[in-house]
Amino acid sequence: MKSLLFVVAAFLLSACSGTALRGTGDLGIVIERASGSVAVVDSTSRSILGRIEGLGDLSHASAVYSRDGRYAYVFGRDGGLTKVDLLERRIARRIIQAGNSIGGAISQDGRLVAAQNYQPGGVKVFDADTLELLADIPAEFSETKQRSKVVGLADVPGNKFVFALFDAGEIWVADLSKSREPKVTKFRNIGKQPYDGLVTPDGRHYMAGLFGEDGIALVDLWKPEQGARKILAGYGKGTEKLPVFKMPHLRGWAVAGGRAYLPAIGKHEVLVVDTTTWQEVGRIPVKGQPVFVMARPDGRQIWVNFAFPDYSNVQVIDTLEQKVVQTLSPGKAVLHMEFTPRGEHVWISSRDDNRVSVYDTASFTKLAELPAQNPSGIFFTSRAARIGF
Amino acid sequence: MKSLLFVVAAFLLSACSGTALRGTGDLGIVIERASGSVAVVDSTSRSILGRIEGLGDLSHASAVYSRDGRYAYVFGRDGGLTKVDLLERRIARRIIQAGNSIGGAISQDGRLVAAQNYQPGGVKVFDADTLELLADIPAEFSETKQRSKVVGLADVPGNKFVFALFDAGEIWVADLSKSREPKVTKFRNIGKQPYDGLVTPDGRHYMAGLFGEDGIALVDLWKPEQGARKILAGYGKGTEKLPVFKMPHLRGWAVAGGRAYLPAIGKHEVLVVDTTTWQEVGRIPVKGQPVFVMARPDGRQIWVNFAFPDYSNVQVIDTLEQKVVQTLSPGKAVLHMEFTPRGEHVWISSRDDNRVSVYDTASFTKLAELPAQNPSGIFFTSRAARIGF
Repeated sequence: MKSLLFVVAAFLLSACSGTALRGTGDLGIVIERASGSVAVVDSTSRSILGRIEGLGDLSHASAVYSRDGRYAYVFGRDGGLTKVDLLERRIARRIIQAGNSIGGAISQDGRLVAAQNYQPGGVKVFDADTLELLADIPAEFSETKQRSKVVGLADVPGNKFVFALFDAGEIWVADLSKSREPKVTKFRNIGKQPYDGLVTPDGRHYMAGLFGEDGIALVDLWKPEQGARKILAGYGKGTEKLPVFKMPHLRGWAVAGGRAYLPAIGKHEVLVVDTTTWQEVGRIPVKGQPVFVMARPDGRQIWVNFAFPDYSNVQVIDTLEQKVVQTLSPGKAVLHMEFTPRGEHVWISSRDDNRVSVYDTASFTKLAELPAQNPSGIFFTSRAARIGF
Repeated sequence: MKSLLFVVAAFLLSACSGTALRGTGDLGIVIERASGSVAVVDSTSRSILGRIEGLGDLSHASAVYSRDGRYAYVFGRDGGLTKVDLLERRIARRIIQAGNSIGGAISQDGRLVAAQNYQPGGVKVFDADTLELLADIPAEFSETKQRSKVVGLADVPGNKFVFALFDAGEIWVADLSKSREPKVTKFRNIGKQPYDGLVTPDGRHYMAGLFGEDGIALVDLWKPEQGARKILAGYGKGTEKLPVFKMPHLRGWAVAGGRAYLPAIGKHEVLVVDTTTWQEVGRIPVKGQPVFVMARPDGRQIWVNFAFPDYSNVQVIDTLEQKVVQTLSPGKAVLHMEFTPRGEHVWISSRDDNRVSVYDTASFTKLAELPAQNPSGIFFTSRAARIGF
């Protein structure tokens, strides 16, 4: 009997210490797009802690975090919305909420998760705890009430979400102060085919990149009565445009040091905009068509990856010198980059080389390579604390 | 026997679930200055999870966080440096590292913790895991090698620390890339009696407030060869100065929307500086002598608390209107304020009313009051991800 007690005790103790206590501030996930799984990573040890399977079609996926940093909400291409527990490394809840979705956002107070959908076009809002559907905002426009694809969804202060309608050429702001009764403000005719959007880190300005014309639509959310305006209009005028194989992405990390660094569509250029005057103040030639243009947290560098065929390279712009100072080859098909919160390292996924590489951002030394299956997006928990992420 | 097994099993399971798994992203600590303890708080549930005792003299104390958000490093007035575990709610390590200390910082990569000391004047650098002393930088100046009190210590990218020497009128930058061999760059004659310092959120500019003259010393850390310069020189000229009972505090949260909001010494004013030109662009009259001037994370508001006798009030400045829009009375002797990471709430300590109040920053509604013994500083784990905190 004593030995049985001992065995039982040992078993129970090992079972409960199996998920050891740890902080969540240095965790993250890597999307493994071909296998519908995510790898849970630790940016202090630069290691993979485990994998979570069963997330469906992650051929395009993005994630946001709960305010405690424990859960990631992964939005999958197939309309899946999966709440994953980074500590227990398992799916906490999963629903299919649309036919075709490209991403989502979490509210300022962390209580609402919103998904942006292509099909059916619109935004759905869920309880962050239970994933219960609280509100449905169809992206209906014109008299025929057809529904537009929704892009560029981001949270802004006041428990609001801002997004753009690709087919309608509109920007909407949804106030979810009352979570089941969204109040929507619509900005119409803001430009042709907004393909993505970003909120500046202060949550004040929303910028929607336009695909159907050269230009960016801009809304000052602190002065909504002024409506939307166009900036960088005609930035590609007079030059030949290349075919676009891959749409760029816009997020708040494009803004640094009083400037926004934006991908030019169909050109090998990064556009530089003064975020006080909203005038173009420069263009930086780069190796290929930019997909992600991301500022290191201190804003001293901008890292750029590219569409095919230049998609195995990454370039680094020094913002003081306003030019490219480094070109790296992290591996074939660089799909995404993510900085550690204070910016000392950057993690870069190379889909076709099945690895994630970690670089020191000051010396450009490669510090580690982690094996991952067709990795795409990399998301650290520090996003939980940032407006617009 | 079966019932004994059951009892043992139940006991073991409850013992190991006693410290349940949870994220650390929404945790924080409140310094309880009279009892040498800290309360561990949860900003999602707005509750106190527990207390940790035995932190010595916390009559002036501040804290920084490990990059995983699990540990707080608390710097106490008596030179104590205590690493506290927020999950297990206990002291992980504690040392007495000086005679009189006022604060510290953590390096960009999270591996080094630095303490700024009055006595003996200087900075000491410790291993963040073990608290082993790695480097000692005496703040010696002049031919007599006397030692100055050190103030305004902050981390900057590159595993560097920047700080000011009150008695010497100097600013030093210590490069800790080699953690046992600090390389120090000294800026001399920067102004009279720097009393605190801040690093802008991008880690680029260091500003030291001056007590011995009206003005701020400024260093562009991206262009150190340009040396230090003086801004806002003579800002109090021609007006009567009031006796100063309490020194203001400077930290990176003073910077928002292209402006720095700084406490004027001995005056009932907040100075507004353009962070591109470094010219004064305004002054906002407030109720008393400001101690903390803190921007809400989105920069739309600046919250100000005051020195005695106005120390039971807090005022809120709207940055668009550039004037005070609200005056609150959270309780007697407001010592500190802290915003939740995305800014929807602010936590305010009232030392003499033994409570911490939580306000909604949009509506100014008081949401909760938490009992605390002579509370002073409030520090959320989201500081782990921010340069200069």
